[in-house]
Amino acid sequence: MKSIRNTFALLAVIFASSTASRAQDPLPSWNDGPAKQAIMDFVRDTTETGGAKFVPAEERIATFDQDGTLWVEHPMYTQVLYCLERVPEVAKKKPYLTKTEPFKTVLSGNREAIAKLSLRDLEKILAATLTGMSVEDFKAEVKKWLATAKHPRYGRLYTELVYQPMQEVLQYLRASGYKTYIVTGGGQDFVREYSEQTYGIPPEQVVGTAGGTKYGYDKEGKPFLTKEPKLLLNDNNAGKPEGIHLMIGRHPLAAFGNSTGDRQMLEYTKAGDGARLSMLVLHDDAQREYAYGPAQGLPDTKVGTFTQALYDEAKKDGWFVISMKKDWKKIFAFEP
Amino acid sequence: MKSIRNTFALLAVIFASSTASRAQDPLPSWNDGPAKQAIMDFVRDTTETGGAKFVPAEERIATFDQDGTLWVEHPMYTQVLYCLERVPEVAKKKPYLTKTEPFKTVLSGNREAIAKLSLRDLEKILAATLTGMSVEDFKAEVKKWLATAKHPRYGRLYTELVYQPMQEVLQYLRASGYKTYIVTGGGQDFVREYSEQTYGIPPEQVVGTAGGTKYGYDKEGKPFLTKEPKLLLNDNNAGKPEGIHLMIGRHPLAAFGNSTGDRQMLEYTKAGDGARLSMLVLHDDAQREYAYGPAQGLPDTKVGTFTQALYDEAKKDGWFVISMKKDWKKIFAFEP
Repeated sequence: MKSIRNTFALLAVIFASSTASRAQDPLPSWNDGPAKQAIMDFVRDTTETGGAKFVPAEERIATFDQDGTLWVEHPMYTQVLYCLERVPEVAKKKPYLTKTEPFKTVLSGNREAIAKLSLRDLEKILAATLTGMSVEDFKAEVKKWLATAKHPRYGRLYTELVYQPMQEVLQYLRASGYKTYIVTGGGQDFVREYSEQTYGIPPEQVVGTAGGTKYGYDKEGKPFLTKEPKLLLNDNNAGKPEGIHLMIGRHPLAAFGNSTGDRQMLEYTKAGDGARLSMLVLHDDAQREYAYGPAQGLPDTKVGTFTQALYDEAKKDGWFVISMKKDWKKIFAFEP
Repeated sequence: MKSIRNTFALLAVIFASSTASRAQDPLPSWNDGPAKQAIMDFVRDTTETGGAKFVPAEERIATFDQDGTLWVEHPMYTQVLYCLERVPEVAKKKPYLTKTEPFKTVLSGNREAIAKLSLRDLEKILAATLTGMSVEDFKAEVKKWLATAKHPRYGRLYTELVYQPMQEVLQYLRASGYKTYIVTGGGQDFVREYSEQTYGIPPEQVVGTAGGTKYGYDKEGKPFLTKEPKLLLNDNNAGKPEGIHLMIGRHPLAAFGNSTGDRQMLEYTKAGDGARLSMLVLHDDAQREYAYGPAQGLPDTKVGTFTQALYDEAKKDGWFVISMKKDWKKIFAFEP
């Protein structure tokens, strides 16, 4: 039995090396450099049969923040835009909201006033637009919005504003036997509506900020779930490793983020034994995308904050910082 | 392109039917009858290319209760036994517990008194034995216990007391492109320790009653998670469909249970469009396993309660009841 296994292992190695030599670059939108090299090394180390850092396929887990890591998060998180744009519809059904703050401000269309809304106001808007309806109604609304809403700068659907180099990383990891997960501060139910089509990540591999649902029956006695304004998981900061444990129950081997909200996930990933990969996307390309964050001496836009402390921890703990400007040949698939 | 696809589809059909005719019975431990037939029909309907009820592979989700559905739940839920047997170890570290109820009773070893402990007492025992330690320490303890603890009647490891016919259903569904999930009232972290080896179900496909964890650092600054006495999901009754939505985000097509705690999961599964399969295991074989529950005019043992109302709903709603006595040729793999 053992000799048969050895033969198989040998054949696998021969096959792997012969195909590797013929294989095309799995990361064509990346410039050569330490970031690209780190990804290639990590995949080789964890998948090379017989290698010291080899990891069995079932344990190959990689986690990805979404906003600012897989797609554009400026000028505002996409889901927050969705919520703001849903307010008129919600107010139609609940007219008293038109006279209540912060809904009055949102309905005024005054961008300056909207930008100044507090976190507390925002929570009220999220609760009003993300809860109180059936799961099925919510899904239908999100699908409808995503099919038409466009980004103010690029004039494209939000689902087109995904980073091509990161799509290649997702595909490369999956082709190497990894299960790829989104671990986002955004709403789990929101992201699940497009994750499969946009990233090839099925809904069951999306971990996000999640509220409770309530089981009930419609008039015909058919059961359905209603989205409740009850927070179960705040999938930010320490909530990311906690959410990974709750939803996956395994330790990730690789994690990708872009802000202080991803710090604990990257620490947690890097803390395990064997080959580990923690990476941070640095938004330093104002021309093709955006440049922001205190680590570059730029203003803290409160969206995807990348502090100097985070940068220092990355250097100290052996994480890799991906420069959008230097490391990415191409940012979007639609670029010529 | 379309003609190539058609050719592939045609080849797939030819291949599928030629292998099907050669294939062995996927459910050899089942007697012929309506239960076995229902499973075979359901799999055929949902996987036959071109059929009216065909379901794409990515949407093939099946959920299984564990206690009493996949393994023995009598005389007591296995995890409760684990908790009771952990009490002496916990009391060593916290000596004041030896003088506090309900720990004093558990430590007395008086079986009659232990059997009379209230639900409130039980909750205290669960909290003391399942929380307050790191996730890694907990995993190690469970693994150690499972490797030695034996069932009082069968004298075998608990992981040997899985139902062979259900193992065949799990394998048959997976071979037919289904993702199989455990959806248990038991502790998610507990079941995840053996689900892969015992059922072929990876930890990320175990949904169970789940508590929160807390992210922190050890003395060397290495991050770890501590299990907290904070309930996030009570995965029983309505908590089952709610947990399925939280953890999977898709509607199951097939669900298997054995008690009133599974009612909502079975209703929810059956409520969707297309082919659906909801099944209940009836414990009616006192000789090979156990017989219990009001639906058979037997006492309610409070473990896996199968009421007459559940039986009536099953008949009315088109669920199938699996009789262990009549439908299962063999219950355990170790039977001669």
